[in-house]
Amino acid sequence: MAGAISIKCKSRSKCFWATRERLSCYALESAHATDNPKKAIDRADALFIGGGNTFRLLKALQDRELLEPIRRKVKGGAPYIGSSAGSNVAGPTIKTTKDMPIVQPRSFDSLGLVPFQISPHYLDPDPNSTHMRETQEERILQFLEENETPVVGIREGAWILIENGAVMLKGETGARIFRRGQAPVDVKTGAEISGLVGGPNGN
Amino acid sequence: MAGAISIKCKSRSKCFWATRERLSCYALESAHATDNPKKAIDRADALFIGGGNTFRLLKALQDRELLEPIRRKVKGGAPYIGSSAGSNVAGPTIKTTKDMPIVQPRSFDSLGLVPFQISPHYLDPDPNSTHMRETQEERILQFLEENETPVVGIREGAWILIENGAVMLKGETGARIFRRGQAPVDVKTGAEISGLVGGPNGN
Repeated sequence: MAGAISIKCKSRSKCFWATRERLSCYALESAHATDNPKKAIDRADALFIGGGNTFRLLKALQDRELLEPIRRKVKGGAPYIGSSAGSNVAGPTIKTTKDMPIVQPRSFDSLGLVPFQISPHYLDPDPNSTHMRETQEERILQFLEENETPVVGIREGAWILIENGAVMLKGETGARIFRRGQAPVDVKTGAEISGLVGGPNGN
Repeated sequence: MAGAISIKCKSRSKCFWATRERLSCYALESAHATDNPKKAIDRADALFIGGGNTFRLLKALQDRELLEPIRRKVKGGAPYIGSSAGSNVAGPTIKTTKDMPIVQPRSFDSLGLVPFQISPHYLDPDPNSTHMRETQEERILQFLEENETPVVGIREGAWILIENGAVMLKGETGARIFRRGQAPVDVKTGAEISGLVGGPNGN
């Protein structure tokens, strides 16, 4: 039985509880419930960060100085599982989150475990909507007006597996990939996407 | 004819163009298109900030040092009109925007022309949705876990008029008011809401 560490900020996240239930066969220790989360990270075999508010999560990781220990652990080979906010913080910054900025982290820089931005809960534009606010696609295109990092919009039901140097799209619903100066591309489950977004080592 | 000043960040905002058309009877000067936006603000009779990305707008206002000149102008009696991002920055902070944090402003503090947060494009929860991400109501309740400032969620088609010390809800669709530790309240058009959210002078 592997020991996994779960890192979670205060939240009523649906994703967190759903994933936690699936991980119940592992000995789970919660970083937010220990006195010394750095040591908890050190002794874990795998890391899981669930959902919640991405700004609060990143601020908690910064305030507790956990970004570097997590990066080190993952670089050393420990598997990292992120869902929702936990996938937002896996990218270089949290600049493609859809969460409200309810607290102010000192920087938007996050774990940078992958060289691309993840925008989870990707929702395709509704052509019949009369709502004036921008769609997720329009927001991501705004991001690319200011930033060069590719973005993967992951639909509900899809996920990314990074293993042995490959970046694979898994699940059922596919993803939409956005790159500066290029038309967005729809990718289907099973696709290897490192050619589009960069590999796990940033190449 | 009054001279109005329009302040806009780079954007393809729908709200901006719609409002600009309605203001076409005024001599409009665009702050973002002048060499000296502070002077343009000084000589204007009224201010209008349209939509776009709220983080980029606030960063532009900070970088060009326009927050204090605008506050001063409005304190001196000049009317302020804000739509979408322009209403987000009218509150004490941008912590209730739904925009993506595509750039990092040095602080989330904004104009503070009113003592309450505005969350425009308020969308009521869809009970049939199977989407995992949080609703706007859930996000605002997260904000209230971390902050004490009341929040007005303004539905499309509603707006707030502050005049002669009164805070009036206008338009057709109403608003939902959120306060820490209290159940959300739906308010209808015509309601005077300063008792719920505070008056224009923060009392």
